[in-house]
Amino acid sequence: MGVTTGGSILVVAGTHGNERNAAWLLEQWQGDAATLNTQGLPLVFERGNPAALQACRRYIDRDLNRSFAPELLSDPAQQDLEVCRARELLARHGPQGAVPAQVVFDLHSTTAAMGNSLVVYGRRAADLALAAGMQQRLGLPIYLHEADGAQTGFLVERWPCGLVVEVGPVPQGVIQATICRQTQLALEAGLEVLAQARAGALTLPRQLAVHRHLGSVDLPRSQGGSPAALLHPALQGADWRPLGLHDAVMLKASGGPICLGEVLPPALAGQARYWPVFVNEAAYDEKGIAFALTRREEWSVHHGWCEALQVQAQGL
Amino acid sequence: MGVTTGGSILVVAGTHGNERNAAWLLEQWQGDAATLNTQGLPLVFERGNPAALQACRRYIDRDLNRSFAPELLSDPAQQDLEVCRARELLARHGPQGAVPAQVVFDLHSTTAAMGNSLVVYGRRAADLALAAGMQQRLGLPIYLHEADGAQTGFLVERWPCGLVVEVGPVPQGVIQATICRQTQLALEAGLEVLAQARAGALTLPRQLAVHRHLGSVDLPRSQGGSPAALLHPALQGADWRPLGLHDAVMLKASGGPICLGEVLPPALAGQARYWPVFVNEAAYDEKGIAFALTRREEWSVHHGWCEALQVQAQGL
Repeated sequence: MGVTTGGSILVVAGTHGNERNAAWLLEQWQGDAATLNTQGLPLVFERGNPAALQACRRYIDRDLNRSFAPELLSDPAQQDLEVCRARELLARHGPQGAVPAQVVFDLHSTTAAMGNSLVVYGRRAADLALAAGMQQRLGLPIYLHEADGAQTGFLVERWPCGLVVEVGPVPQGVIQATICRQTQLALEAGLEVLAQARAGALTLPRQLAVHRHLGSVDLPRSQGGSPAALLHPALQGADWRPLGLHDAVMLKASGGPICLGEVLPPALAGQARYWPVFVNEAAYDEKGIAFALTRREEWSVHHGWCEALQVQAQGL
Repeated sequence: MGVTTGGSILVVAGTHGNERNAAWLLEQWQGDAATLNTQGLPLVFERGNPAALQACRRYIDRDLNRSFAPELLSDPAQQDLEVCRARELLARHGPQGAVPAQVVFDLHSTTAAMGNSLVVYGRRAADLALAAGMQQRLGLPIYLHEADGAQTGFLVERWPCGLVVEVGPVPQGVIQATICRQTQLALEAGLEVLAQARAGALTLPRQLAVHRHLGSVDLPRSQGGSPAALLHPALQGADWRPLGLHDAVMLKASGGPICLGEVLPPALAGQARYWPVFVNEAAYDEKGIAFALTRREEWSVHHGWCEALQVQAQGL
């Protein structure tokens, strides 16, 4: 029924080794197929970073979810554990791999209060269709990550279609039943969209709400690199809630507030409101990100998106 | 004015390298003495595990807060980083150290919803007096840890008086302003108690509420060690709230609840109610602890406790 056949859907958990909720779920799904509603679709499961999972650390040598940049993958001198693992995953399940996958779901968790949410990288039509269908079913907010030269090499970008499911807040290293439940609901919604697309029966909503990445804000730092201010308590847990320039976003060590306008990078100026995401994510401290700022937009769903996803899904 | 003179109060932060809130506070206090109300008491500050703080990991070789057992400290063959660091802290600030401390506050955080709380090890009179005074000021719940052969070698046990301040929930690796604020309030309440004790003017309440450690409960495990059930959502975040034998504490992978009575270790039987603490603490997974169970008791404050603390405080 499709353009290509024999393809599958790749489900990755534990791309970061201290994000254990999806990794735990994956073990259940592999142990008992009845625990996941697959809609009859062909799935393959992979633990993203088994060595990091074993160590309960985000990564061993480098962040696996920044290791899929073509220039890293093609550099024979680059032998970091995670780059080697990226090559291995592509050799197995990449579009030209041994058991090729058309679509990938990369299941993450975060210490930020993101709720149950999606991250889409760039504006590929099939990704937007998949995200729109999932948003229609569960109301999940979508973080559209694009045009950030400091953050590249994401896993899902190496497959024709794919997105990240991001659920929080949950501490690193902790499994919580509600986080697992949300993760599974998101994946099952995605599989339902793909099943409809494979059947040529997918209908999408007319509108899609996205939160488009504008840039990131870090805390001020002392010379030694330590934070010279803290995230403001009013912003802690307030992911997706709009901020104005006069809203407090940090707290000085001396106790006074710092407003968004005081720390907004000039390149991000010009918006009336900003929607923060990944607020105080533990792993982003080393990346110099206290929170990211987005702009909320309502997009019309293009007819071509649905077709693009159906092309991928018909290969399943 | 005291039995011994020239002693000080040791304040330790970052005993676990991924508990960053107190470590951040300590940097502020060292940078600007006005940021902490010391009551004029002589304080010395130490980062417990600088190498682990640098790596943002709980420990490098072994848990520093289980490395103060006399048999470890005295074994010349034992050269783990944390045992060496324990010897170093004792050589500097132990009771017979270069700059001896009479009292130690060890400042921790946890992924469990412990709120602002105290942990006391055993029933030393001076510790109980200090804890009673802090509970009187801030209402902090007290976890009395004793008689658990599987958990020994705690830092504060090597000083004549000392306790742990434990604040949560906060993810590992994350600094939150409210967690810092609670930590500082607890320390300042402790210093106020010690200042009164030094002045011979300490009065204690008549009653002390303690939660006495009974034992720990782990999740059922698969042969590979992975959890075969999850903590029940009703217990997540419910530290200090009493449980009966028919209360759900876990959730099977298949979805059904597991009640406390089904998983209670036989040695812990016989209580009408149990007060859980350290529920789903990230670092206790490797110790096989899903939560600890305590028994809440109201104790009469003995007159001798106050005297015992004043003896220590008069050495300050």
